[in-house]
Amino acid sequence: MARYAVGVDLGGTNLRIAAVDETGKLLAKVTLGTEVRRGREFVVEELARSVAEMQEKFRGVAELCGIGVGVPGLIDSETGRLVESPNLPGWEDYDVKGDIERRLGATVILENDANVAAMGEQWLGAGRKSESLCMYTLGTGVGGGLILEGKLWRGWNGMAGELGHCNVYPDGHECKCGSRGCLEQYASATAVVRMAREAMEGGAATELRSLNAEELSSQAIYESAMRGDAVAKSVFERVGRALGLAIGNMVNAMNFPLYVIGGGVSSAWDAFAPAMFDEVRKRSYIYAATTAEDGTGIGGRKRPTVITRALLGGDGGLYGAARLPMVQSKGSSA
Amino acid sequence: MARYAVGVDLGGTNLRIAAVDETGKLLAKVTLGTEVRRGREFVVEELARSVAEMQEKFRGVAELCGIGVGVPGLIDSETGRLVESPNLPGWEDYDVKGDIERRLGATVILENDANVAAMGEQWLGAGRKSESLCMYTLGTGVGGGLILEGKLWRGWNGMAGELGHCNVYPDGHECKCGSRGCLEQYASATAVVRMAREAMEGGAATELRSLNAEELSSQAIYESAMRGDAVAKSVFERVGRALGLAIGNMVNAMNFPLYVIGGGVSSAWDAFAPAMFDEVRKRSYIYAATTAEDGTGIGGRKRPTVITRALLGGDGGLYGAARLPMVQSKGSSA
Repeated sequence: MARYAVGVDLGGTNLRIAAVDETGKLLAKVTLGTEVRRGREFVVEELARSVAEMQEKFRGVAELCGIGVGVPGLIDSETGRLVESPNLPGWEDYDVKGDIERRLGATVILENDANVAAMGEQWLGAGRKSESLCMYTLGTGVGGGLILEGKLWRGWNGMAGELGHCNVYPDGHECKCGSRGCLEQYASATAVVRMAREAMEGGAATELRSLNAEELSSQAIYESAMRGDAVAKSVFERVGRALGLAIGNMVNAMNFPLYVIGGGVSSAWDAFAPAMFDEVRKRSYIYAATTAEDGTGIGGRKRPTVITRALLGGDGGLYGAARLPMVQSKGSSA
Repeated sequence: MARYAVGVDLGGTNLRIAAVDETGKLLAKVTLGTEVRRGREFVVEELARSVAEMQEKFRGVAELCGIGVGVPGLIDSETGRLVESPNLPGWEDYDVKGDIERRLGATVILENDANVAAMGEQWLGAGRKSESLCMYTLGTGVGGGLILEGKLWRGWNGMAGELGHCNVYPDGHECKCGSRGCLEQYASATAVVRMAREAMEGGAATELRSLNAEELSSQAIYESAMRGDAVAKSVFERVGRALGLAIGNMVNAMNFPLYVIGGGVSSAWDAFAPAMFDEVRKRSYIYAATTAEDGTGIGGRKRPTVITRALLGGDGGLYGAARLPMVQSKGSSA
């Protein structure tokens, strides 16, 4: 019998649930508005009901192999519990995994949202041809996910891929993590808005002044940059420089073949990519050598280092979450 | 029959050759002074002669499974040739591997010197209990080697582990790689001497002024720091800060369990380690959480992140080089 998995994207505002088969085909999808605000019991009940409906629908046709859940925040890899999740207040130290498993009798795997986005991109998106990749998700914060030779790299404490807290400017803007100048302070949607606001406070002339506080979003600043506004352009130039520094370090340290940029801010690619490429070329002679126009350098153009946009948009995490139990059950049956 | 491998440390000034058995026991060791200066044919001839003598000595007792050679510089992983090696002039694009293989009829594996040092430390040194580690070698330059789940991580172009070129200060001292503020500009022996010289040029009062240009070495500056000289102390404080920044980034990105500091400058551990630990704690909340004195935080003290000195000193590379053909031949026979 065919097998399918359920992927859950448990965001701070949306709960999205998808049934995906082993070829990556979407079988069913449910989006539950902003119900996350009604509390964890409500959400888990909704989730269990949706999955039960899917199981009913596919009875005799396909078998549920497990449920993967992508969550924003830190997960204790030993217990599978959420240790910290600013966007899901009240979920800390709650046994999400055990609760859903008891209700449905199916395996549940909890994973960081950027990690599942990386898995989704490798399975069905920008990383389909790549065994290894490094993914940056530029959203409210900056997350990261690393795939090494086809497997998610979780690290010693299950906390690998905290790429938003890699340092780019040691004396830079302070970060809630306790450090200063973390990538997240220059490449997140929050940072884009802050940098625009700082420029305005500094007296710079910009059309952004016509926007009220609510309208001043990363997207609006991007549109302004595309219309040629100098301040908006310089904000995204800074996004690109910071990303280029961070990616350059990853090229030098890990020499991944592929760097995938996803998350909401990645839609401003045209505004930040030129500075990003320029910076990574300066910061990593390995990048420069492997992407040299004339084909010279290490590996020539045979094995270029690629930096590209994510392909699955907001669905990357959903597909990646569905992928979790497939990979897990394959591994355990081998 | 027991098996052994030959490890070769082909440095800019010394050629060292060791026969090591599969348990890590040293069977024989030869050091050939500064003969590297006599050219590549001479060196390869000496090497072949030494290995042939070892083969003769162990005939009927142990079987040679291969020769591992650690070299400073960049190696093209496809051809096994040296692409760039400032310390071995004339060796670029020379088929070292093929030449030795033809002379001895044994497999030769060429590997970057920092990579073999990492392998040595994992096999017999500071990383014996660790499946994964990140090694920094602080010598004339700064190199790096990464072991992931027991295997050397070479990356897409065989150039992973260029940790000396990870950026710590974007506007910092210029580096020959084309960037500015690379770790190598703050944590190598060369950088230690440069920073001391800069401080003296800036007029700082220091006992280092009594040393002539030749005496002003990283070791002499360390000894001065240990006697309390403020300038010498501040130089090593800068070494520690730069290392802490770089290691903090690796903890955040890769979440390795272990960071091993080797190379000549690592003997100045007492002078730079306090600043290094302080900086990495500030820069990585993962490090801080996993090493919290009170046992709180992710994983508590059950899975601490460890930063420590290399244990094998200058022999790490020799043992690691010998390890190369053992791992390779095990892999191919599996």
